[in-house]
Amino acid sequence: MILRIAVSSICVAFLALNANAGAKGNRAAEPQDARDIKAVLDRQVEAWNRRDLEGFMNGYWRSERLTFFSGATKTTGWQATIDRYRKRYQSEGREMGHLDFYDQQLDLLGPRAAVVRGRWRLKTGATEAGGLFTLIFRKFDDGWKIVHDHTGAE
Amino acid sequence: MILRIAVSSICVAFLALNANAGAKGNRAAEPQDARDIKAVLDRQVEAWNRRDLEGFMNGYWRSERLTFFSGATKTTGWQATIDRYRKRYQSEGREMGHLDFYDQQLDLLGPRAAVVRGRWRLKTGATEAGGLFTLIFRKFDDGWKIVHDHTGAE
Repeated sequence: MILRIAVSSICVAFLALNANAGAKGNRAAEPQDARDIKAVLDRQVEAWNRRDLEGFMNGYWRSERLTFFSGATKTTGWQATIDRYRKRYQSEGREMGHLDFYDQQLDLLGPRAAVVRGRWRLKTGATEAGGLFTLIFRKFDDGWKIVHDHTGAE
Repeated sequence: MILRIAVSSICVAFLALNANAGAKGNRAAEPQDARDIKAVLDRQVEAWNRRDLEGFMNGYWRSERLTFFSGATKTTGWQATIDRYRKRYQSEGREMGHLDFYDQQLDLLGPRAAVVRGRWRLKTGATEAGGLFTLIFRKFDDGWKIVHDHTGAE
């Protein structure tokens, strides 16, 4: 990750500095950040797959300013987002199914921001849904949280 | 913009410093960045509406690492992205129509990165298409460029 950022033309000053520090054997901050962000996503998937929607939602910024774009629908706020998930996946006759994320690409955008691009897949019985997602993460005092989720369905 | 960033809990250190500088009458860097990013989008819309696809594509990072998510399709690279636009909007029987962006929210994510969320609308004759978009911008030596575009259709 350090190398890829260091040789790319999009590296920003602080990343280049960190990469140099890494080259000298002093572990830079961004690989830990990348691991922390991946851990947030892993915990989301684990929570979803045990039907723990609150646990899944822990990955999101608990704020009225969280935004969630799905298809043509813009949902604003953490509460509205969990309500949307409850309606779609936990109301009568609905199933949460088995979720996974794959083809992920993580890019740090600054000391406290990152973007993760990837694909999601949800298996429910014999049916499978999926699509692309873009997640904007910001680093807060209590860790990395998704502040914006743009999810598409196939 | 400065105030909104300053009072939000997501402000990062450099933004807070800049906002303080702004309060003292010393214009901070981020409003100029925000203006520059908006100018990129304005130029894209103007180029589109004069059927100048190359001009429109100037807003995108001219790199094989540019990513463009539309529906379930992931397009990688500037060339593949302009090829896709040409096929959809300039091939026989296709029209580019009249584009505009609205409901935009711009957030700086670090000294050289930003996200713009918004809606697009394309009027072609009597029909209208539209949807949500998420754009990741990075600041290069030649200015702000879109490095990732996630666009959905209604």
